[in-house]
Amino acid sequence: MIGVDWGTSSQRAFRLGADGTVLERREAACGILHVAEGRFDVALRAIAGDWIVAGETQVLLSGMIGSRQGWVEAPYLPCPAGPDDLAAALVRVPFEGATVLLVPGLTDADDADTPEVMRGEETQLAGLPSLLEEDALACLPGSHSKWARLADGRITAFRTYLSGEAFSALRDGTILGRMMTDGPTVAAAFDRGVARSAEPGHLLHHLFGVRSLGLMHRLAEADSASYLSGLLIGHEVHAALPTGRLVHLVGAGPLCALYARAIASCGGNAVIEDSEAACRGLARIGRAVAWA
Amino acid sequence: MIGVDWGTSSQRAFRLGADGTVLERREAACGILHVAEGRFDVALRAIAGDWIVAGETQVLLSGMIGSRQGWVEAPYLPCPAGPDDLAAALVRVPFEGATVLLVPGLTDADDADTPEVMRGEETQLAGLPSLLEEDALACLPGSHSKWARLADGRITAFRTYLSGEAFSALRDGTILGRMMTDGPTVAAAFDRGVARSAEPGHLLHHLFGVRSLGLMHRLAEADSASYLSGLLIGHEVHAALPTGRLVHLVGAGPLCALYARAIASCGGNAVIEDSEAACRGLARIGRAVAWA
Repeated sequence: MIGVDWGTSSQRAFRLGADGTVLERREAACGILHVAEGRFDVALRAIAGDWIVAGETQVLLSGMIGSRQGWVEAPYLPCPAGPDDLAAALVRVPFEGATVLLVPGLTDADDADTPEVMRGEETQLAGLPSLLEEDALACLPGSHSKWARLADGRITAFRTYLSGEAFSALRDGTILGRMMTDGPTVAAAFDRGVARSAEPGHLLHHLFGVRSLGLMHRLAEADSASYLSGLLIGHEVHAALPTGRLVHLVGAGPLCALYARAIASCGGNAVIEDSEAACRGLARIGRAVAWA
Repeated sequence: MIGVDWGTSSQRAFRLGADGTVLERREAACGILHVAEGRFDVALRAIAGDWIVAGETQVLLSGMIGSRQGWVEAPYLPCPAGPDDLAAALVRVPFEGATVLLVPGLTDADDADTPEVMRGEETQLAGLPSLLEEDALACLPGSHSKWARLADGRITAFRTYLSGEAFSALRDGTILGRMMTDGPTVAAAFDRGVARSAEPGHLLHHLFGVRSLGLMHRLAEADSASYLSGLLIGHEVHAALPTGRLVHLVGAGPLCALYARAIASCGGNAVIEDSEAACRGLARIGRAVAWA
């Protein structure tokens, strides 16, 4: 089968063997925002047309391609839900020469009945070995970080934190950014931001400290962005992490490494899962599909 | 005397009588960022040159004009400090034909020894009648909101919250803004954001709710910016307001009115002070100056 992890800004396609082995892989900057005039069929043929012609006629798509701005909207499935539930709720899109199915996203609600949504992350979680544990905790860091509870083969609940997007907006759109230089994350400054997140005071107060420490020459310009990153991720981890828990981190390596630092500093333990989660999830859901 | 409240983006000049009465007032968009080549002397003559020629040779400047990016840097004075302390620490700038003095800003440190700074707000507070109370609480809402404790004629401590600047950055730089329309604040939506701030969950989680409520058609686009504003101000007020306290609000009328709503909703009481705080503070400090 063919699996495509198709997000807002990029597209990753996998040709998968019957056992889920990756036979071939491709990547394109052809996210749903870059597809002209809604011609998603053209974009799919561009990345995987030759595989389809060669006989791979089972195609599974996950991510924002199933959103309102995507090919066809695949309605959210409520939690708890696992790979088999997702496989039973796939949405078929019209396409000549192959069976093309969309993985739906998931919904949940927080304690105050405010809705939660994920789209794409459910597929990454579907391939995670710890999904089968009795009670596991996974974190998918990113623009909109997701913290998910997993139990007995299903995603039972999840919460979202806007940390990644808040970081970019605060760096690019406030006076804090004027004291920042570009460059890789400085580990010591990141740790200092995480430590600050544990101190008394609200995030909105701590944010001003990024400015005032700089003014007083107590935070170097080269450290300032890393400190802000640690501050935001620290706040997120303190809010999301039950004491002493093990967290399965799923996502890009460098960002997962920063989350692992923050989690350790907040008294938890982190395991970084391999970066093939989306591909393994697509294979896992694909195995549960009645393709006929 | 002449008092000038000279900030980053604008300049407000007052000709004051001996008793502090405003005899004349002028306003210009000539903030320190708009003064070419550091010619602050030219900018001062542009707004108040005729008053100086007419014999007003005592000039007091407050605000960012005393910062590192201003005319001359007036070092911060540590808290506690009041109008008489400020008057004793003025910094003179070279100027032909008048005595021109800069009001210094104030510093403090929070419980974790992170520095606090204000510049301009100390002058607004210096003119506040409640400065003379035994223990008063004032809030100056804005890009960097200040919450100050006042006692026996001095500012004893203060804390800053980045709420205003965070609002602009989140509206303009994240996906939240895409679901927002321009327009005046919608009171009911603002109140709903304030109420949300009291619910369980961290601000970074609540921020994602702005998006998810919109996606689920439970928050209208016309309400979304007001809801975000209420959410941020609500978080600030919950963090800064001791239970049941009276808060003296100093600043622009519409913003103070929103803070008053949030403070009431969080169990406090608010009094909106008249909007002449800067002018009255300049007069109060000016009276304590040995101009000779």
